[in-house]
Amino acid sequence: MRTTMTDADLLKEAERLQVLLAEQAAKHDRETTFPEEGKTAMNHSPLNTALLDGASWLTFGQVISILARGDASFATAWLMHQGSAAMLRALVDPAQASFMEAEFRRGAWFGNALGEPTSGNQFLMPLQQARRVEGGWRLSGSKRFVSGGEGAKYLITSAVCDGQPGFFLIDKDDSVRAEEIWDPMGMRATRSQLLHLQDTLLPESRRLRLDPTQPNAIAVGLPWISIGIAEAAMGFAIGYAKERRLPPENKPLAELQWVQFSVADMSTRLEAARSLAIRSATTTDQRTPDSPFLQMQAKMVANDAAIAIATAALELAGGSGYLKSRPIERYVRDAMSGPLMAWSPAVTRDLLGKAILGLLGPPPA
Amino acid sequence: MRTTMTDADLLKEAERLQVLLAEQAAKHDRETTFPEEGKTAMNHSPLNTALLDGASWLTFGQVISILARGDASFATAWLMHQGSAAMLRALVDPAQASFMEAEFRRGAWFGNALGEPTSGNQFLMPLQQARRVEGGWRLSGSKRFVSGGEGAKYLITSAVCDGQPGFFLIDKDDSVRAEEIWDPMGMRATRSQLLHLQDTLLPESRRLRLDPTQPNAIAVGLPWISIGIAEAAMGFAIGYAKERRLPPENKPLAELQWVQFSVADMSTRLEAARSLAIRSATTTDQRTPDSPFLQMQAKMVANDAAIAIATAALELAGGSGYLKSRPIERYVRDAMSGPLMAWSPAVTRDLLGKAILGLLGPPPA
Amino acid sequence: MRTTMTDADLLKEAERLQVLLAEQAAKHDRETTFPEEGKTAMNHSPLNTALLDGASWLTFGQVISILARGDASFATAWLMHQGSAAMLRALVDPAQASFMEAEFRRGAWFGNALGEPTSGNQFLMPLQQARRVEGGWRLSGSKRFVSGGEGAKYLITSAVCDGQPGFFLIDKDDSVRAEEIWDPMGMRATRSQLLHLQDTLLPESRRLRLDPTQPNAIAVGLPWISIGIAEAAMGFAIGYAKERRLPPENKPLAELQWVQFSVADMSTRLEAARSLAIRSATTTDQRTPDSPFLQMQAKMVANDAAIAIATAALELAGGSGYLKSRPIERYVRDAMSGPLMAWSPAVTRDLLGKAILGLLGPPPA
Amino acid sequence: MRTTMTDADLLKEAERLQVLLAEQAAKHDRETTFPEEGKTAMNHSPLNTALLDGASWLTFGQVISILARGDASFATAWLMHQGSAAMLRALVDPAQASFMEAEFRRGAWFGNALGEPTSGNQFLMPLQQARRVEGGWRLSGSKRFVSGGEGAKYLITSAVCDGQPGFFLIDKDDSVRAEEIWDPMGMRATRSQLLHLQDTLLPESRRLRLDPTQPNAIAVGLPWISIGIAEAAMGFAIGYAKERRLPPENKPLAELQWVQFSVADMSTRLEAARSLAIRSATTTDQRTPDSPFLQMQAKMVANDAAIAIATAALELAGGSGYLKSRPIERYVRDAMSGPLMAWSPAVTRDLLGKAILGLLGPPPA
Repeated sequence: MRTTMTDADLLKEAERLQVLLAEQAAKHDRETTFPEEGKTAMNHSPLNTALLDGASWLTFGQVISILARGDASFATAWLMHQGSAAMLRALVDPAQASFMEAEFRRGAWFGNALGEPTSGNQFLMPLQQARRVEGGWRLSGSKRFVSGGEGAKYLITSAVCDGQPGFFLIDKDDSVRAEEIWDPMGMRATRSQLLHLQDTLLPESRRLRLDPTQPNAIAVGLPWISIGIAEAAMGFAIGYAKERRLPPENKPLAELQWVQFSVADMSTRLEAARSLAIRSATTTDQRTPDSPFLQMQAKMVANDAAIAIATAALELAGGSGYLKSRPIERYVRDAMSGPLMAWSPAVTRDLLGKAILGLLGPPPA
Repeated sequence: MRTTMTDADLLKEAERLQVLLAEQAAKHDRETTFPEEGKTAMNHSPLNTALLDGASWLTFGQVISILARGDASFATAWLMHQGSAAMLRALVDPAQASFMEAEFRRGAWFGNALGEPTSGNQFLMPLQQARRVEGGWRLSGSKRFVSGGEGAKYLITSAVCDGQPGFFLIDKDDSVRAEEIWDPMGMRATRSQLLHLQDTLLPESRRLRLDPTQPNAIAVGLPWISIGIAEAAMGFAIGYAKERRLPPENKPLAELQWVQFSVADMSTRLEAARSLAIRSATTTDQRTPDSPFLQMQAKMVANDAAIAIATAALELAGGSGYLKSRPIERYVRDAMSGPLMAWSPAVTRDLLGKAILGLLGPPPA
Repeated sequence: MRTTMTDADLLKEAERLQVLLAEQAAKHDRETTFPEEGKTAMNHSPLNTALLDGASWLTFGQVISILARGDASFATAWLMHQGSAAMLRALVDPAQASFMEAEFRRGAWFGNALGEPTSGNQFLMPLQQARRVEGGWRLSGSKRFVSGGEGAKYLITSAVCDGQPGFFLIDKDDSVRAEEIWDPMGMRATRSQLLHLQDTLLPESRRLRLDPTQPNAIAVGLPWISIGIAEAAMGFAIGYAKERRLPPENKPLAELQWVQFSVADMSTRLEAARSLAIRSATTTDQRTPDSPFLQMQAKMVANDAAIAIATAALELAGGSGYLKSRPIERYVRDAMSGPLMAWSPAVTRDLLGKAILGLLGPPPA
Repeated sequence: MRTTMTDADLLKEAERLQVLLAEQAAKHDRETTFPEEGKTAMNHSPLNTALLDGASWLTFGQVISILARGDASFATAWLMHQGSAAMLRALVDPAQASFMEAEFRRGAWFGNALGEPTSGNQFLMPLQQARRVEGGWRLSGSKRFVSGGEGAKYLITSAVCDGQPGFFLIDKDDSVRAEEIWDPMGMRATRSQLLHLQDTLLPESRRLRLDPTQPNAIAVGLPWISIGIAEAAMGFAIGYAKERRLPPENKPLAELQWVQFSVADMSTRLEAARSLAIRSATTTDQRTPDSPFLQMQAKMVANDAAIAIATAALELAGGSGYLKSRPIERYVRDAMSGPLMAWSPAVTRDLLGKAILGLLGPPPA
């Protein structure tokens, strides 16, 4: 059964989940645990299938930002789950596509296991070789940074098959073992472990024929993670500036001009990042040819905005903001993951620069 | 007769004028002369009345950016003219409003004479006192930076009348004398002289009742001046990078990674500035309450983008870009006027910060 | 007995300790434990008394940066210890001054307990009131961010005494209790707890008469903490860029132009920060009147450099740098404490701007 | 006869000339004329031979900055003259070296004609071929951006001689013709024309054997040009902020916190740039191996500081600063030449990055 929620309803539902996520975010960060209660709530929410059910990319992006405002780790893991789900249509076998969509609607979690330990940002260029077997291929190798992968039932993965990149949707069965590497600076609750695949089956029937002209949910969604973090940081800064009073005059921070300027700059950066993300999502909805470039640019601008805004909010909070008793230092740590996720600024700037200068064929409009 | 041009037609027409403007822009810059041929062409173009005829603010903004790509000085003077014209509806006397609209349609040029030598950015707060006379007021004073004012037939001006700010649309008659002060760093072709008013009549019948809830054309348009300059600078950079070959390998600049990264960064800044300007203009069309703040933020982001992009393009062109034989140094000089026009970053950040922190009443959404 | 080590010997000794500190730094960061082995080694090293024994401020600064390269937390706690020790000469009672110097030479640790929970950056302006008792004053209050304070035998503290700020060197006796608040983003091994003073004696005989014309060891030393972190981050980046090879060409990162530019920029920022810190320390040795301003400026520039360099190194390391298995994310977290320590950029810019504009009396030369 | 002026005397003398230069700087900028009165005064000043007479590089740099504070164009042309003069010792023939030194002491002006129209920044890699003749070589070619070259009696120039770069000190005789190309954005008074050489003799007896271990006066001096401009801009900003009063309260700009912060930031950038330039010059005096790298870094930091400071001062002055009736817009235009002079940031970052990463042999200490 399809949901018939309006965009406004979806955003309201996201706000409801965001409150729930925010309550536990500090705990999951401290303990490096996955927000299971968020996952449970999400599995009972129409948000989980909104994209499958035809929500616009713009609404999807806004949902991501709202969730990220509550817990950026959960929003990231959920985005990876959604990104994998968006690829279900790429299953070559229609029966498998139907089955997997049903699984998804039943609450099965999907993980993105495309990154290889040595591949850097180039997650669409697997280097690990699979060997031909009856009914498909078998791969022994490792995939890293699989956000939420421990709780996934299925994985999108890849390997070199007969010299070509092959993409598959596989069962996360006993041949897949997680190695606990996830002790990071931030985004701690994603539990993005290293997965070891030991002669794992990549079934021919679960092969994906990726269509490069179709939007990539992860590319569309990533800017909105940073926007959510930036919103959370700015919200904190405003609240703190109003409450904190400084000796000797006991005036609120908010009355100092430098604080006013700082908050104004946060807002300006945030609005620029938001505007570009909105345009990126809108052009994706319209399938205009510049949308992939706008997605990359939206990510860079939003990543930078989140770091700048969270850092400025930390400066405003002073020493007390440096302690884990307040959320702002977590926002800084989470924000700093932005440029590290694919595609990195270096990959983006290289690609974009070459495209604009006509070195990759026709430049974007 | 109203034009029935579509938005696409208006943009095409703007491109036609832009080509014409670009041809003479270097000459007018060098000689500090007004682009009279641009004015003549504009007076025969449906663009001149597009705003009066109901063009959207978004289209208006895009037209400004296209014109500014050709000659930022002309685009600025025309924006001031349009901004004055947009206030015609504020004439208290309907007969005067009709007459002035007819004058505008016949090609009369309107100038903005609101800035006072000592008022800084606060151009809606006149300090000069007018004296009560039969039929209105008389003002002896000076207004500065009146772009295109020498060729204007009418001026919007202001004075303190009985202790309150009064705004008027006046004839630029013999009591108004231009003093040649305009020898600026850039934007040289605007000829933004200082006007001296000697007992000039401010007729009661030409009083304006400004409606602060109505969009201000100048506030909407200013970001687009910077966007046009940024586009011109980036266009120059791309062309130069493709053509210029460097010893010893004789490779085009475009093949150097730092040049690719530089061009990518230009594009990213430009798209962020454009996206915010688009959103600012679109929300103005929709009259949403956040539109005045978005206009200010769009101006700051666009001003900064134009300076950064033009400066990066200059770096790319090296010593040869520093010479007036190429347009890039003019783009830099023109771009640097952006933050100096009202409202300045300091005024904007002060106002915005106070609003966000709830010190001015309810904050923007 | 005074040490007669040359400056070069002192720097060499600092390098020896730095190696020892670096070995345990990740562990202490993870477990939020104090580097006791560093403290023990330091108590047996001539470095601990170098400042008392007449080492120059320049050498002192360089020692701080070397130690901070190994473990910024230890270097910070040691700087606070040294800063307190440098105030021993301010003891009004010469017998106490001699005794305390002997205590210091015997390995007693001194803590800086000047910051109050509500005082922000203004650590020379106590707000808490002490009450007059026989032989001195008694204070009930709290002092926060006392780096290394748990292991201190003596504390520098302050209170309002008869309406005037009073400074004292006190025993850390049973009336002083540490509250464990120290769960921060970085600088975790400083264990900068909150100390509660319960009717603690501030003996008249241990009063300090602070001489504002004497150099403040903490102000001189703080820039060098950031410089040490920046050096560590840059060292990591260089090593990583040489070792890490990227598919498909399997070339080292170091051969990419953007990596070369990034490393060049790190070096340039570091050299600018170092040069200003050197000048600040040298002018302090010479007691020139601009030295206090140069110290503040050196701190701001070094703080920013450390954050920028560590962040750039993190970008270079990509996702693997985000994990605690590598030191770089710790350098980022430690670096971000820089602007939060007194004086903050806001306090500094305010003071400096007013001084330069002649609003505080004569400006610096 | 050698001068025996102390460093302090040389700086005082530079201040005297600076006042004289500042008086005419606006006029020469407007009219694109060379500061002949500055040249005359300099030819009668001990400053002109201070470098020959053994002044330290630090003093030389400080002299440059003082002159640049008065007129950056003159300081640049004089630096090129001094840089050429510093190469006299490289004349292979000792008799020629003596003669040229005498010429220099008699007031002959030397020009730097090393840049070729296509060579970009690589001014030590001539591409133009000379042909072997009796007594030397003959060159037909062009050299660009020869600051003060019209009034030079001698020129340093270069050509490919038998496949190797050859450097010569030549007479500027009738075979050398200046083409007027110098209509630049800033630094207008340098008159850095394009020189055409028509079968010009490069005498074997005037060959230079450049010693790459000897300091290059231009590389040492260039950072100080930017420092002088920055000082002038900051001086202007301070004066303006004190004098300009803003309605409605009629308070001086200086009392606004954002102005105080802006001036503080100017000062901090300037002190960082100065400190690095001082260290660069001092290590040059000491001939330490890192001095060439520090010179390059000092140039980049000073170039950026001058642009940032002049731009911030322009923002502070608002619209009135955009007019040529005030000096600040000239400081901006002059400052923007900094990164365009060799070596450019791109060349520097490339070289520096490769050196640090060990790709050019042993890295700097």
